[in-house]
Amino acid sequence: MSSSAILLIHCPDNKGIVATVSEFIFKNNGNITYLDQHVDSTQKTFFMRIEWELDDFIIPPNKIGEYFDTLIAKKYSMKWQLHFSNEVPRMALFVSKLPHCLYDILSRWKSQEIEVDIPLVISNHLELEPIARQFGIDFYHFAINTENKREQEQAQLQLLAEHDIEFIVLARYMQILSEEFISHYRNKIINIHHSFLPAFPGARPYHSAFERGVKVIGATSHYVTAELDAGPIITQDIIRVSHADSVDDLMRKGRDLEKVILARSIWHHLKRQILVFQNRTVVFT
Amino acid sequence: MSSSAILLIHCPDNKGIVATVSEFIFKNNGNITYLDQHVDSTQKTFFMRIEWELDDFIIPPNKIGEYFDTLIAKKYSMKWQLHFSNEVPRMALFVSKLPHCLYDILSRWKSQEIEVDIPLVISNHLELEPIARQFGIDFYHFAINTENKREQEQAQLQLLAEHDIEFIVLARYMQILSEEFISHYRNKIINIHHSFLPAFPGARPYHSAFERGVKVIGATSHYVTAELDAGPIITQDIIRVSHADSVDDLMRKGRDLEKVILARSIWHHLKRQILVFQNRTVVFT
Amino acid sequence: MSSSAILLIHCPDNKGIVATVSEFIFKNNGNITYLDQHVDSTQKTFFMRIEWELDDFIIPPNKIGEYFDTLIAKKYSMKWQLHFSNEVPRMALFVSKLPHCLYDILSRWKSQEIEVDIPLVISNHLELEPIARQFGIDFYHFAINTENKREQEQAQLQLLAEHDIEFIVLARYMQILSEEFISHYRNKIINIHHSFLPAFPGARPYHSAFERGVKVIGATSHYVTAELDAGPIITQDIIRVSHADSVDDLMRKGRDLEKVILARSIWHHLKRQILVFQNRTVVFT
Amino acid sequence: MSSSAILLIHCPDNKGIVATVSEFIFKNNGNITYLDQHVDSTQKTFFMRIEWELDDFIIPPNKIGEYFDTLIAKKYSMKWQLHFSNEVPRMALFVSKLPHCLYDILSRWKSQEIEVDIPLVISNHLELEPIARQFGIDFYHFAINTENKREQEQAQLQLLAEHDIEFIVLARYMQILSEEFISHYRNKIINIHHSFLPAFPGARPYHSAFERGVKVIGATSHYVTAELDAGPIITQDIIRVSHADSVDDLMRKGRDLEKVILARSIWHHLKRQILVFQNRTVVFT
Repeated sequence: MSSSAILLIHCPDNKGIVATVSEFIFKNNGNITYLDQHVDSTQKTFFMRIEWELDDFIIPPNKIGEYFDTLIAKKYSMKWQLHFSNEVPRMALFVSKLPHCLYDILSRWKSQEIEVDIPLVISNHLELEPIARQFGIDFYHFAINTENKREQEQAQLQLLAEHDIEFIVLARYMQILSEEFISHYRNKIINIHHSFLPAFPGARPYHSAFERGVKVIGATSHYVTAELDAGPIITQDIIRVSHADSVDDLMRKGRDLEKVILARSIWHHLKRQILVFQNRTVVFT
Repeated sequence: MSSSAILLIHCPDNKGIVATVSEFIFKNNGNITYLDQHVDSTQKTFFMRIEWELDDFIIPPNKIGEYFDTLIAKKYSMKWQLHFSNEVPRMALFVSKLPHCLYDILSRWKSQEIEVDIPLVISNHLELEPIARQFGIDFYHFAINTENKREQEQAQLQLLAEHDIEFIVLARYMQILSEEFISHYRNKIINIHHSFLPAFPGARPYHSAFERGVKVIGATSHYVTAELDAGPIITQDIIRVSHADSVDDLMRKGRDLEKVILARSIWHHLKRQILVFQNRTVVFT
Repeated sequence: MSSSAILLIHCPDNKGIVATVSEFIFKNNGNITYLDQHVDSTQKTFFMRIEWELDDFIIPPNKIGEYFDTLIAKKYSMKWQLHFSNEVPRMALFVSKLPHCLYDILSRWKSQEIEVDIPLVISNHLELEPIARQFGIDFYHFAINTENKREQEQAQLQLLAEHDIEFIVLARYMQILSEEFISHYRNKIINIHHSFLPAFPGARPYHSAFERGVKVIGATSHYVTAELDAGPIITQDIIRVSHADSVDDLMRKGRDLEKVILARSIWHHLKRQILVFQNRTVVFT
Repeated sequence: MSSSAILLIHCPDNKGIVATVSEFIFKNNGNITYLDQHVDSTQKTFFMRIEWELDDFIIPPNKIGEYFDTLIAKKYSMKWQLHFSNEVPRMALFVSKLPHCLYDILSRWKSQEIEVDIPLVISNHLELEPIARQFGIDFYHFAINTENKREQEQAQLQLLAEHDIEFIVLARYMQILSEEFISHYRNKIINIHHSFLPAFPGARPYHSAFERGVKVIGATSHYVTAELDAGPIITQDIIRVSHADSVDDLMRKGRDLEKVILARSIWHHLKRQILVFQNRTVVFT
């Protein structure tokens, strides 16, 4: 399979953007394999994801960004990202004590369902170390309390930098990240929350759902921002429950949602399908 | 089809309740066609719905309640309701300006999908009068403002009493009922709210859902209590949405949810499948 | 709201199609409000739906097709359709005895949820005449048996032609259309089938679903082709059922699916979102 | 947590069964924690699942079956099974080359989400041996061709007997079991099929689904019978797809369904919630 380039764009809405961008690719002999655009008419903002094969593309990959920026992006005041399908991003996993998301992600990784490098697992607890080891991945333990939090986060950041980590997945990591930490990975930390946000943010959402007597429970993956459980939502799904379900049943049923929803978000992130704009996502699928 | 009796029970959990109740029916020659029970182990509370055919039942229908209360209910400190499948309840519809739920309910009623009497439609606006008329149902208009609210509600209550209304359905009725009004129809007013509560209570939930960038929207039917949109939930369901959906799209897609969810709740209520306990429902299906 | 043009295209896949088409619109001062494309890589076929505002468009609406065909379509061997958002299509409803889809469609039409003209309802039975009348629509009865079928279909076709009907909706019409009839409305007859096709085609799918003990039932809307229940699928959805559901329960629950799924298909058809290719649909949403 | 007894019953429908059975438990000082019954009115057959705590139960566990059979079952011509919640069933996994269901089940087992013993994994291929080993489970390879099939199945049966296997899970095992093999594990072999049966039985259902252009795909778990993919359905679920999904996308999305659906069925089987009657299941949840 040949490599392709992926361009994610957003800018003020304007006539001619699609024509200009697709012309740029066509003139340089690229074959477009995906193009989708979206106009948010309330924000007058244009979004596009475009992917094309690089085989006969005239501009060499390492020059595409420069050319695109000069020839097109500046004219339309575009924000853009350029990715290549043959890059393998580097991801860090943060976990605490619950194993289901960790098992699920590592199984997908090991069976090459997702193409990603996972150099390390970080945890504030020791319980899941055997699982990381079982899959041959380094495990780092950072016990965190109110005194050492800043210091430990700095150590984590250094470790992440050493391993050239591009994005972080919180696979049921039960520790709030500081605003400072988050600022290093803006829209690059994916969390799974075990409710259909904005209902039941924070701790113990299954208990709250039980108390409220809801008939559906959900899970929500989102990029982490400074405000708890309020970042841009990537994926959500639900499962039906009834009066007959205890809190334990909700937790059990919810686990299946959590791991599938989180995996779907990782997929979208890896495939460069997500654009974030004003705390909302555009997910091109 | 022969008539049957339906008994809804809740009481402190105890050994022998099922044996005692089923024995009572068996001894009196009733054939049980439905029995489901639920134990809320956090509340140590027992719930049961039992239905049996009256054909050869020894106790006459009008004596069943008295016998049951004396022989069984008192012993177990039961709260109970007795219904008969051949009763046709009388329902009032409250509407404002949106027609979809009204059309849907009247269509189901007219085609005998639901067995219910609908003597009247009440509205705080005039827009939907032609629909009520089109289906041959009386329409009453009560314009409501802060000055006349108490007075108008009293007039409504009197009208409902005159028509011997058993329960009320708020089919997108956009007017908050007073605590006093609600007290006359405790757990007998069904509302449809256009979000998956407890997310987005109150006004304009589709706008809030759009702002928050959720990927699923929902609808919730619940019994009305004094606290707005916080009563016991009967039914909920959701539909997936994406960044491509405008607020108008959410409203359009949501309408289909609303009418189906509301109809399902009316069905459960009519079939006497719902027990309310501590702001949660047990729905036996 | 200003009017817009909608172009639906399919052709052999080729470089430069998006650039050429979007350039055509841009050069003529059109503002693209929607563009989505799809490449079926197994068929090497390109599909596109593009919509643009006509306000400042240089080519007058009645010339767009001619220009597009000459300048672009021929070069790429395109099949194309051009529609305008301010056209109101004319639809005929075919029904038999079940009222739920008829009520639902007429309610949506009457409340302007769908913009369509419905000049007539055709039926092989008389039961639903009052509903058509109630909504002020002409009702035509064509009793059909093996002897008169050809003749009655010819009469129906003439009636449809007189009323300038563009497309037909079979709203639980329980009568198989002849191949000859269908040939007059190729990909313009929408049927709702009460199962998730290809499971349970033909008659009595709910009975078959019950017999087979399935745990989900579905509904499928599709364009009608000569082979029964085998035409291109437009929309499908399902609802969960259990052992506790009788055939009557399946029918009741299925009705809600049927009417919602059928309405969704009508929406897609009216919005010109559907392309048919080799017995499958591309639905741009 | 104390141990409880679970009784699964079916018999011709009759008055007094619930009373008699619940009386039997009550008189012997059992506390019923679950009771659900179902009457199939087309078959005039009664089904019940009843569970009670054994703490103060007068009859010792090893005598309950005998007493129940003598005192009650014979009178009502009941078929019954008695289980105890503290038994840990022994399960064998059959796999071929696809790892996702295997990973998922072993992860649930290792994290004690399901209480079951898994003494061995059997496969007709060698690819998944490392996964079994990684989780510390014995792996047995039985290459199967038309010549050796009978012989290999006999060897498998002997191995299963030696390990005292109660039930078998086919976790994407791509080899048809002979009628003779199946006869040893009647309603004790759970298969996951990657379509919403009865649509697309047999090989390559995702390819068939793509060809047919369906808008939902599904997965079905069922007990294996002699007729391929036609056994009693335990659980089914679906996921929405569109024209934009290639066969590879269907496979990828389907995998998440398959593993979750299969796990749900194993849960129901382990919790003794399933009764099979005339090729359909009653699943008490």
